[in-house]
Amino acid sequence: MSARFTVRYRIAATDAAEAQARARDIALEQTVEIPADIVPAGFVAETILGRVEAVVPDADGFLVDISYADAGVGSDVLQLLNVVFGNSSLKPGIRVAGLAPSDGVLALCPGPRFGAMGLRQRLGVPTGPLLLSAIKPVGLDTAALADLAHRFALGGMDMVKDDHGLTDQRSAPFAARLRACVDAVGDANARTGGRCIFVPNVTGPDPLERAFAAQEAGAGAVMLAPALTGYGVLHRLATHADFHLPILSHPAFGGANVVAPGAGFDHGVWFGTLPRLLGVDAVIYPNFGGRFGFTVEECRSIAAACAAPLGTVRSSLPTPGGGMTLARVPEMQAAYGDDVIYLMGGALLRQPDLAEACRELARAVGRAS
Amino acid sequence: MSARFTVRYRIAATDAAEAQARARDIALEQTVEIPADIVPAGFVAETILGRVEAVVPDADGFLVDISYADAGVGSDVLQLLNVVFGNSSLKPGIRVAGLAPSDGVLALCPGPRFGAMGLRQRLGVPTGPLLLSAIKPVGLDTAALADLAHRFALGGMDMVKDDHGLTDQRSAPFAARLRACVDAVGDANARTGGRCIFVPNVTGPDPLERAFAAQEAGAGAVMLAPALTGYGVLHRLATHADFHLPILSHPAFGGANVVAPGAGFDHGVWFGTLPRLLGVDAVIYPNFGGRFGFTVEECRSIAAACAAPLGTVRSSLPTPGGGMTLARVPEMQAAYGDDVIYLMGGALLRQPDLAEACRELARAVGRAS
Repeated sequence: MSARFTVRYRIAATDAAEAQARARDIALEQTVEIPADIVPAGFVAETILGRVEAVVPDADGFLVDISYADAGVGSDVLQLLNVVFGNSSLKPGIRVAGLAPSDGVLALCPGPRFGAMGLRQRLGVPTGPLLLSAIKPVGLDTAALADLAHRFALGGMDMVKDDHGLTDQRSAPFAARLRACVDAVGDANARTGGRCIFVPNVTGPDPLERAFAAQEAGAGAVMLAPALTGYGVLHRLATHADFHLPILSHPAFGGANVVAPGAGFDHGVWFGTLPRLLGVDAVIYPNFGGRFGFTVEECRSIAAACAAPLGTVRSSLPTPGGGMTLARVPEMQAAYGDDVIYLMGGALLRQPDLAEACRELARAVGRAS
Repeated sequence: MSARFTVRYRIAATDAAEAQARARDIALEQTVEIPADIVPAGFVAETILGRVEAVVPDADGFLVDISYADAGVGSDVLQLLNVVFGNSSLKPGIRVAGLAPSDGVLALCPGPRFGAMGLRQRLGVPTGPLLLSAIKPVGLDTAALADLAHRFALGGMDMVKDDHGLTDQRSAPFAARLRACVDAVGDANARTGGRCIFVPNVTGPDPLERAFAAQEAGAGAVMLAPALTGYGVLHRLATHADFHLPILSHPAFGGANVVAPGAGFDHGVWFGTLPRLLGVDAVIYPNFGGRFGFTVEECRSIAAACAAPLGTVRSSLPTPGGGMTLARVPEMQAAYGDDVIYLMGGALLRQPDLAEACRELARAVGRAS
């Protein structure tokens, strides 16, 4: 007997019979990938084959629960993702709406090493919102970027990250930028008594190599874009015995998985459940009302999924960003409460006194003294 | 002066002014990620910032060409993808419709090591369609899977691959399955005088490790699902000095990037241009008319993009699969001609005499003696 985990799909279907048929198709597609009449009897048919557990009408179609055997996944985390939504991602009118892990999945995916509480502890901010900004744009040289990091830290930001487009360009190569920014933030901390951390972007040809270089150099966390690096890299880093830093995820390149109705994943699964299972401590996503099209409901569903019970997996911290301004703080407070990281870039960078702009943000979110 | 490459986007806009505004937003979003009025003058504004080259009305909206500097990419292939469609993937009503590489992009992305001609040469099939099948389902043990591989090879298939769900499950662990299937195909070749190759799935926690194990064991090519492994892994493998096998790509988990209108990529870019740049020799995708929803026009656009001029990059081979049957061979011949790999699984596996079913397929596509 193999234990089973359950995936909930939101599917398009005109009636219950069609929904049942689609559900059976998904169960086949995601496991044996052969027609039902030639599925081998015994272990394959009884255990490996997906099992339709429920088909329930929903506002826009049907919700379908299908359970899968841990034995069909083994110890490969990418095979878990493949069973959840490998081939079915290629069919229209199917969206992943939920994932209920088995003990086996939880053993494979222990989740964030730190989580919301652990990250807060490292930053010395047990309650209230956290503050994150980004050095940018691509094209500035290392000294200019490090100077921005310095001023963000002087202003009291908890974290300063690379813009996700900063990789290893000649204008500011990864290794030199990492050293300069860690030093710049350290200098600022020495002056303020603060605990700001620098968070380099380790998305690159060998993200693990860059992540370990970051740890070695004294970075306080790392950021990667798992839709680019691959999800296995994230999982390896989060479970690596020798890696000891929090991980922030960036949503770049993965957008089609959420923005298109009838395809991909519900927002809470894509930015909440899945990243948590894979080990993300703080998940960056586009905030509502900014220059992206996410609604406040979608964003609240992400925050909820970051904190919802998920077996033994720690909570992660929702990190909305993208076109945020001071004027929008009140509606963000209303939407997210205090368990949130405010990611603000351009609105700070446009102020003549960057450190003072950071302090103004801190006051606006109720963090300043 | 930095050379520039150009990305074509298909965008939703109600009039030319809105299209121009969206184009400028994309140019900012994909490069500097700050508002236009605070972009630093000099190198950043003149070189790094995306440049709107053309905005042209199209059937469903507008086609927008934006050029980007090689200097904003550097030598990180994931940063190339990020510049093409990192953050903009998160906005609705934008789709990547084309990519015209610069010499710098072509130097970074030399493309498939073998390509269509090189793969044909290795298989000893200079002209005509190629034949590929898959051992499955997940849950069969190693001996049963190797027996299938043996019979596919006896039947004259050019390639036999792992089902993409076969990873390292206890029922058929990767290393044992690899050895057994290479041996089984080798035995069959010794009997028939054929040159069939075994193509293991190397999608896993360390795809490079599995790929090198495959090469060591005598596999004839490898398959991976880059939407799962990450695109850097594909690129590293394709450009690795010590790796010498063709690469097949599998579309699992990446479907939202093509199936949803107004998001992701045009089919030809997602399955043609991009995989070629990243080093794929043969690209697996869902065939029209099977159990997926791709249209014949979409599939033909993929085949066209696999062979279209792309700088110095070799052609790849379109490899349609998914619900194919012998009865559908004529319409596939009409759609694809001879430069195609027929991927057929279930329809062969359901025949009582598997090797004979393969020979029947070979006759149907005009390959058999």
